This record gives sequence, C-alpha cells and structure tokens, in this order.
Amino acid sequence: MSDLTGRVRGPLAPSTAVQRPLSIDDVEIHGGPLGRWQRINREASIPLGLEQMEKSGAVPNLRLAAGEGEGSFQGYRFQDSDLYKQLEAVAWEHCRHPEPDGAHRAFVAESAALLARAQRPDGYLNAHYQVVKPDRIFAELEYSHEMYCAGHLFQAAVAAARAGLGDDLLAVARRFADLLVRRFLVDGDDGIDGHAEVETALVELYRLTGERPYLDLARKLIDNRGKGLIKSTGMGPLYAQDHLPVREADTAVGHAVRQLYLEAGVVDVAVETGDADLLASSVRRWEDLVATKTSITGGHGSRHDGEAFGERYELPPDRAYNESCAAIASIHWNWRLLLATGHGRYADLIERTLYNAFAASTSADGTRFFYVNPLQRRADLFEDAYLGRRREWFACACCPPNIMRLVSSLGHYVATTDDEGVSVHQYVPGVIRAGGVVLDVETGYPWDGRVRFTVRSAPGGPWTLKLRIPAWSTATTHDPGPDGYAAIRREWRAGDTFTLGLDLTPRIVRPHRRIDALRGCAAIERGPLVYCFEQVDQDAGLDDLALMPGAALRTVERDLPGIGTTVLIEADAVRLPPAPAHGLPYTTGADPAPVAPATLTAVPYYQWDNRDGGVMRVWIPLA
Amino acid sequence: MSDLTGRVRGPLAPSTAVQRPLSIDDVEIHGGPLGRWQRINREASIPLGLEQMEKSGAVPNLRLAAGEGEGSFQGYRFQDSDLYKQLEAVAWEHCRHPEPDGAHRAFVAESAALLARAQRPDGYLNAHYQVVKPDRIFAELEYSHEMYCAGHLFQAAVAAARAGLGDDLLAVARRFADLLVRRFLVDGDDGIDGHAEVETALVELYRLTGERPYLDLARKLIDNRGKGLIKSTGMGPLYAQDHLPVREADTAVGHAVRQLYLEAGVVDVAVETGDADLLASSVRRWEDLVATKTSITGGHGSRHDGEAFGERYELPPDRAYNESCAAIASIHWNWRLLLATGHGRYADLIERTLYNAFAASTSADGTRFFYVNPLQRRADLFEDAYLGRRREWFACACCPPNIMRLVSSLGHYVATTDDEGVSVHQYVPGVIRAGGVVLDVETGYPWDGRVRFTVRSAPGGPWTLKLRIPAWSTATTHDPGPDGYAAIRREWRAGDTFTLGLDLTPRIVRPHRRIDALRGCAAIERGPLVYCFEQVDQDAGLDDLALMPGAALRTVERDLPGIGTTVLIEADAVRLPPAPAHGLPYTTGADPAPVAPATLTAVPYYQWDNRDGGVMRVWIPLA
Repeated sequence: MSDLTGRVRGPLAPSTAVQRPLSIDDVEIHGGPLGRWQRINREASIPLGLEQMEKSGAVPNLRLAAGEGEGSFQGYRFQDSDLYKQLEAVAWEHCRHPEPDGAHRAFVAESAALLARAQRPDGYLNAHYQVVKPDRIFAELEYSHEMYCAGHLFQAAVAAARAGLGDDLLAVARRFADLLVRRFLVDGDDGIDGHAEVETALVELYRLTGERPYLDLARKLIDNRGKGLIKSTGMGPLYAQDHLPVREADTAVGHAVRQLYLEAGVVDVAVETGDADLLASSVRRWEDLVATKTSITGGHGSRHDGEAFGERYELPPDRAYNESCAAIASIHWNWRLLLATGHGRYADLIERTLYNAFAASTSADGTRFFYVNPLQRRADLFEDAYLGRRREWFACACCPPNIMRLVSSLGHYVATTDDEGVSVHQYVPGVIRAGGVVLDVETGYPWDGRVRFTVRSAPGGPWTLKLRIPAWSTATTHDPGPDGYAAIRREWRAGDTFTLGLDLTPRIVRPHRRIDALRGCAAIERGPLVYCFEQVDQDAGLDDLALMPGAALRTVERDLPGIGTTVLIEADAVRLPPAPAHGLPYTTGADPAPVAPATLTAVPYYQWDNRDGGVMRVWIPLA
Repeated sequence: MSDLTGRVRGPLAPSTAVQRPLSIDDVEIHGGPLGRWQRINREASIPLGLEQMEKSGAVPNLRLAAGEGEGSFQGYRFQDSDLYKQLEAVAWEHCRHPEPDGAHRAFVAESAALLARAQRPDGYLNAHYQVVKPDRIFAELEYSHEMYCAGHLFQAAVAAARAGLGDDLLAVARRFADLLVRRFLVDGDDGIDGHAEVETALVELYRLTGERPYLDLARKLIDNRGKGLIKSTGMGPLYAQDHLPVREADTAVGHAVRQLYLEAGVVDVAVETGDADLLASSVRRWEDLVATKTSITGGHGSRHDGEAFGERYELPPDRAYNESCAAIASIHWNWRLLLATGHGRYADLIERTLYNAFAASTSADGTRFFYVNPLQRRADLFEDAYLGRRREWFACACCPPNIMRLVSSLGHYVATTDDEGVSVHQYVPGVIRAGGVVLDVETGYPWDGRVRFTVRSAPGGPWTLKLRIPAWSTATTHDPGPDGYAAIRREWRAGDTFTLGLDLTPRIVRPHRRIDALRGCAAIERGPLVYCFEQVDQDAGLDDLALMPGAALRTVERDLPGIGTTVLIEADAVRLPPAPAHGLPYTTGADPAPVAPATLTAVPYYQWDNRDGGVMRVWIPLA
C-alpha cells in the first residue's frame, strides 16, 4: 500500500504510479470555466441535489429500509446510488472549500447515521431490495444494480474519510464490502453485477484500508466476465461486456457507462496487481475507442438503443447518446491510464471531454442538466422534451450527482508529481502545491493561450516542470517530448516565472471519411473548445447554411444573455435554397446553387441550450 | 355498401373508389420477381410458417385457451396474431392458386374450429389474456394488443370468406367484433389499443358484412386519438400516435408500424364516411413522409429505439430500422390512397417499396426473413446475429406471416378498373381480367423495360388502357398525364397489341443535402430497383472504395450463387488509403489522395444477404 494513501485527499491514490496524484486542496482554481463551474456547483447544483435527495425519494427510501418512514419505495432500484454520489460530491466540496456553517458536514453525518440504521446486521444495504424484494437479494444481479450501488457507497465513504468528515460512512461501507467478500470471494458465489462500477470502487477501498480481499474481489469480478455468468436481460451479452474475457476484448461494446466504469476498474486492478497484460488490453481498447468510437466532443455512446456504443465509425451527431455519466467514467478511466503511464494523450482526452461533452451537461446557471448530449438538434421539438432541453432532474437521476462529484473534485486532475518534479495536465488560474513546490498560475485559458507560472516557493536543487502540450496546438512556444509534455528542468527559485504559449488559432476540422454520418461536414475548434452553431446566432435558417471551404475564422468577444462573456467565431458561408416540400429527396441532376452569401456564427458547444430550444449543429456542411 | 363487395376476392373492396380493385384471381402472375416470390412463398415460406404455428406456440396457446392443451403459454401476448396472418396468407394463396390436396382448406377449417372453441361465449378471444391474465381483460389496452389481434382475426376472416373457404372464421370474427362494438361503441368505454390495426380491419369487416357499427367503431377509435386516452407505457405519446388528434397531425411519428396501420384505417374510414378533411390529413402526412422520412428503398422507421420514425431528414442508412411490417403497412396505406384518388404517385411508392424494402425482407429461397432492413451493414458482426442476417423465425414473429399474406395477394395490386377502362399499376408477365377485358402481358420487367399488352378479348366500343409511367422513367415511349398514367383510348379488339417502353438506363441518384447521414454519397437505381454494394462482389475493401462522380454505369448479366441470374451494375471507382489505427479521426489538413483506380459492382438491394454476412452499402461515397 502506497504511503500516499493516507495523504491523498482525492478520488485516486494508487499504490504505484508513474505520475502521483495530488489532493483536491493542493490545487486552488481561481477562475476560468473550471473555476466558474465549481462556484455554481456549490451555489446552485449541490443545493438542488440535496433537495432532490428528499424529493426523489432517495433518502425516504432508506428511512423505509430502516423501518422509520412511511409510504412506499420511490424511483428506480438503484435510487440509493443518487445519495451516494451526492455524498461524494459534498465530501469533495468540503475538501475543496469547507463551508463555515457545517451544513455539508451535517449532511454527511446524518446520512451515515441513517445508512447505518438501514443497513442489515450482515452488512447488506439496498433500500429497494430490503423494502420491495427481500426475497430476491443477490438473486438477479444481471439487473439488480446491488453491487453498482455498493460501489458508489464505497466511493462516497472513501471521499468522506479522505475529506476528514469522519469514518462513520466508511464503517457502513466496510460492512457491506466484507459481506461481498464473504459471499462472492470466499464462499464462491460467481455472481457479477450487470452494471460494472464496484470494481474500481473496491480497489479504492483497498487502497484506503489495506484490506487485500477487496482488491481480490475486484479482480475476480473482472476476470469472470466473458464466461456467460451474467444472466440474459434481453439486451444481449455485449450490453454488460460479458461477450469475451476482458483480456481478449479489442473494442468497447455495449452500454457505454458500464464499459467505461469497467475500464476504470480494469486499470485499477492492473496497477495494484502488476498485471501488464490486463493493462495492455485496456490501452488497446482505448486506442480503438479513440480511433473509431469517440465523438469530437469526447462523448461516448452512439446509440439511444441500449445507451450503447455503436459499431466502429458509427458516430451520428443527431442520435449520439453521449450520456453525461459516460463522459465522467471516461475521465475516470483516462486519469487512471495517465497516472499509470504518464502519457499526455490521456490528459488531452480528459481536457477534450471536460471542456465539451462533460461541460455541456450543465446549464450556465448550474440548475439544469443533460443526460444525453447530442451534437445536433433539429427543429422538430415535439419530441419528448426529456431529450430536447436540459432539465432540473430526471426519473433516472444518475447524471446530475455524478456531474457534481466530478466538478467538486476537479482540483485533483490538474497536476501530479513524480521523482523529477511537477507535471501540469490542465491549465487553470490558481495555485498548485506539489511536494515542496508552490506555483501561482495566471491564465485566461481557454480564451487566451498564455499560461504564466510563478514559483512562489520551491525546495532547493533542480527539478522539472512538465507542461502538457495539447496535440491540437501547432504553433506552440515549447515542443513536447514523446510523452506529450514539454519538460523544463531548472534550479527553480521563488520568483521565477515561466510562460507557456498555446496556439489558439481557430481550426476547421474535418472528419475521417470512414465516419459516414459526418461526411461532407466540418467543425470548428479553438484551443480545447469544440464550437457549435445555434439558430439564435445566425442571420438565416441554420438548416440552409453551409461553410465556405477554407473560410477565414474570425474571433469575436461578445456578452450573450444566459451565458455571459464568451468568444464567438464567425466565418463566411452561403445560404442554399430550402428543401422542396414534395417528392422523394433522392434525385438525379445537379445540386442547387447557393442563393446568397451569409455568415455563420459559432459559440462554444458547452454553452449551447442556454438561450432557447432551437436548431443546433456541431458539424456544418461544407459548401 | 358497394356492389363490388360480394365480388372482390381480395383484401380491399371499398364502397366508393376512383379506381376499383380486382380480385386476386383476376390477375395471373407468370414470372418476373413477383411470380418467383409467389412460387417460393407457396413452396417454402408458407409451409415453414405452418410448422411455426405449432413450434412457436401460437396454436398450442389457443388449445390452452380452449381448455384442451397442456403446458404453459408461449411467446408474446400478441402471439395469436401470427396465426391470423398465417391464415390470411393461406386464404389468399388458396384464392390465387387452389391446391389440389386440400391442405390449405383443412388448415383454415381446423383453425376456425379451434378458435371457436377457444372463444368465450361473449365473443372475447385472446389466448394470452384468457390463459395468463384473465383479470386484466381490456384493462391495459395501452400495451395488451387485444384489439390489434382482433383486427388481424377480422382480416383473416374476410380473406377466408372472400376466398371461398367458408364462413366459420367469419362467425368467430363477428362475435368478437360485436363484443368490441358493445363495449367500446355502445356502452361508452373510450379505450383505444396502443397498437393501431383494428381500425382498417373493422372497416373491411363492415364492407363484407354491411354492419355499420363496425365502421362507426373504427371511426371512434381514430377520432379519439390525441386525447390522452392511451395510458402511458413509458414510450411517450408519439409512440402510439396519441399526441394530437389525427386531423391535426402533420407528420408521421412514433412506432412506424402503428402509424402506418393507423393511416390505412384513416383512409378506409374517410372513404366510407365521405370525410374529405380526414382524407386530406392523411394525404398531407403522406407528402411530408415522402419528402422527409422515407428511405430510398421505401422503408420507414429510422430508429431502433421505439422502432420509430425519426425527425424530418433523419435517415441513417446503418441504423435505419425499416421494419418489414412497416413496408407492408405502407403498401396497404398507399393502395388505399391510390384507389381513393387514382394518382400514380401512390403506385410509384408501392412499386419502390415492393421491389426494395419489402422484397429485401425475404431470402432468395423463401426460408429466411429480415425484421429490420438496413441500408448499410458494417463488418462488426459480433452484434447480436438477430440484426445481422436473415433468420428462419423470430421470438416476435410479426414479420414473416405478414410477408406471406402480402405475397400471396400480390395479384390484387396489379390493376384496377373505372368507368373508362383498365388501369395497370404494376408490370408483371401474366394475364389481367378486368370487367370484360382480358389482357395478356409479356414483359421481362424489371430487367427489361418493354411491356407488351395483347388484348385477348374485349367488350365492344372504346375504352381506355391506362399505364402508370413511373416518375423515374425519363425517356419513356409514352408520356403520362397529370395523374401519372399514359391513357390510351381506343376501340380495342381481340388481337390488338400495345407496347410500353420504360427507360431502364441506370441512374446515379443523389440525396437532398438536408439528409445529414447521406451527405457526400450516391446510390444506383435501375428501373424500380435500388442497387447496393456487397463486399463479396468487390475487388477491394468496400469501406475504402468511392464512386467516381459522373461514372458511366455498365449493366452486366450474371448468374450468382444463391440468387440466380441477375443484372449487376459496374462503375469506375477509386480505392482510398485505409483509416489510421490511432488517434482521433478529426483533423485539420487535406483528405488523403486515392491510392488506385478500382471498380465498384452493384447488385439489386433486394438480393443482398443471400451469399454471406459481409459489408453492404446502398449509399456509396463519391470520390
């Protein structure tokens, strides 16, 4: 067990790592989008989430399980997990910025006490099964989500313990983990939860407590996939990644969130057991995923049907599912790969996902969320509004508290240390404390490409400052090494400054021709931001506009209602004649000529749906 | 009631029509694809279906309902409808070509007797609800399919009666229809089946029997949609077309088969009640559907999720659902619009659907079927094989018997009469008997564009021969009038001949730019046939081939294993470099140049999947 474990106050503390993580409170984020998200998370999202813990029935269900409440069970069988994620969000928020009035501490303490009362003496804890189906405990793991809920409990308990909010929640978690170990490791029950998640959570619980059986159970749950041990739910074996042994699987399949949480667990187990083959299989799937099954926004999951991955190159912008939870699980997985390998490509993908697929999940005011994150919205808004606009909450509310727990822990993902020095993975204005080093960071990123580091204090002697050079930055002031980082080794002293210049020239990006659904289109990026076009910003119908190939991209700073100050990008375009109202749209003959020149105006994708429910496109046809 | 009713031995006998239908046995189809499909339907598909009526549990379930069988209910709650469609298929087949050994007659008689024994005294008949959930009869219409099954029973009974197979099935049907009338019309129960179908069936039962309440109930079931009377099933109000009153709906929505069966009922009710507004609403939705929600194959339903229509212009070739039942329902609807209006555009769409989306549903040997009919299949064949290759049967087996009943009744859709003469809508070699006219038809259509009509006998005096001129035929020997037909009025005499020449020059077809998923692609058509590319016919990887714009299309007759003689189309193409294995597929910079010239070889789409499970595309990228 790493001697870090007691000291990393954050989600991940591996026993061995090429890059060692910092605590959440080792990093202060003073501004920029990440800083803003953390502020509204605290002021708006988390309070909304805490209300919903009562309104949605998550807490009332547990009172019923404790024999204290009235009424009936509300919501889904995995409703407990909403509370666990909310607890984790609050714990990391406390770690980041302890609140003076003790409300967060009280929430954790009261929840832990209720959970302890609801928990059965043998350690089992699940409101749905205890209240509604006590005769089916562990009998229908293919869809029960019992271990999935347990995993989120373990993650909440680790967060509370590391955030200094006490060990009561940890005691509840350990009793449940010990039950799982007794039944599924020692007593030989080969059951596997159809929804992966507990694996990564068990490993973190092992890292915190030193209890080796937790790690062994996680490994068993991973090794037993692909043997048909998960009973059919009618969704097929791909859905729950039970089609092949993990070491043999070459591509991501099935339900996206399940697959991605599984990968986080795979890397965790591989790192703690030194299993190079297992790690290599995850890297292999990562490469295939990035090359063939990832949206430009970093989103994963092409299909509503099954909330699942599609086939290679099946990446429709309109029907992309890109569940918010999948973006979060992707960040978890990539962070583990980054710590295990030190390669900047994982931090690149974290950045792309964070600033696009993930950031788009929350409204500018922090009170509404997306479950599904498409790259195109048409005008036919008689669809169930569930899929059209962000919403305050959901019947299946896995996404909002998941968003909150990532936002409150963002500081953990900014920088790491190794024996050479400090590596910076994400660019935010604020302070980084790593080992004996304190760095002040000033930047207007992602609106400005300059990042200035000032050494506030440093130990004596030379050390290396490594700065990730994103693959999209072409005319950068400093070149990366093969690992994707520029390494500057000096005898850094208090007062020393260093400025990195990233290239924020806007880019026209083309999809590979194999992606059928994007053929003939282009997208606009600037820095880490993917842009999009919303009808409200155009001077003509967006469905009839096309971008001029090779158009110059002009940045324009503007203050938009509902969003605030942002940078728009304008480009020359043409307006095309509208579609005929009659007849099959398949014809011989030439395409109609443009009607008139026009201008296309793009806004950062993550800022979409903050004004109205109109047409939106990331990918725009080229004229 | 039309004086035709007693005399049309076929699916449709409206009381009033611009074009009056013929009986199935008024038309002999001697060859061509339709003739071949009828032969294998009889020799292979129907026998397979009859076996499946036992194996799938459809008949055993009814024995249970009659108190005669052993075991438990098998299959879906709508399993009865498989038997009803099978009965209808056999009845029309008997009408078309009575079999000498009486096996079809016996099947109908024995089934009718079993159904009469299973039927409750009050007329109710539904094996699932009688055996499994007798306490929920008519209590969960939103998903029970009780009226859906009744509708298929009515259509089977009409078929048996018109085919001269007796009235026993009709007696069973009338008892059930009378029950529905008592409860849902007279006694005021406002329930509506979540799956439309009974509406069109009730109207045909009215046409056969003269019982006005059947028509009134059908009208009520249509008029009551859009009032929220269909309880939620979690699929939303669009799914069952309960979002708007029918007269106000402008576009097809929700589950495709439900929407299209509903439209058939809408036109039926409009025609029988003289409701011009109702008919106009259906025409309006037809125009929108054709312009924005129809595949080039005529298929309907863009989404697996909900088996549903997508938004306008959402027409992905890979994830197109295009359920076989939807193609059949589309043909039913278009036929009703054709008879009601006389316009050739409906026969054009019937032809497109018949020769492409519908024909693709069945293997060349008639023993395997598609439920889903995509326009692209990728190489990732670890998907559930259910969706990859045609299959002998399905757990949800709505499609195969539906296919069989359409194929056996195809003669009904070939020609019609009006006061002026005879109209020919589909071109087949064989004989057409209409009024006093007998026409011999010789043609190699769709492989040859010439259709020769020889008058075998005719009444004296002038009459008009109307021949549909498909919209795709440019250099035709005869021009159409505004209704889409060339009208040749003469004093036709025995021995007169007339040859129509349709233009079978192969065509490169482009999608309208609004269809995002098809941008940058083209498809090949020849006559009514849409073509496709199968990997097995290419000399390089199909995923790396692109069609040269303006390429000459060369027809090649070839004998293919598993298919027989067919006409392929070759075109000049280029081979492009394969996709990189690493990195996000979104880049700046120019597209890679072609590697080498190549040839693309296309085969008729309906003949695909008869050789192997390889990559297939209808829409091919243009170089």
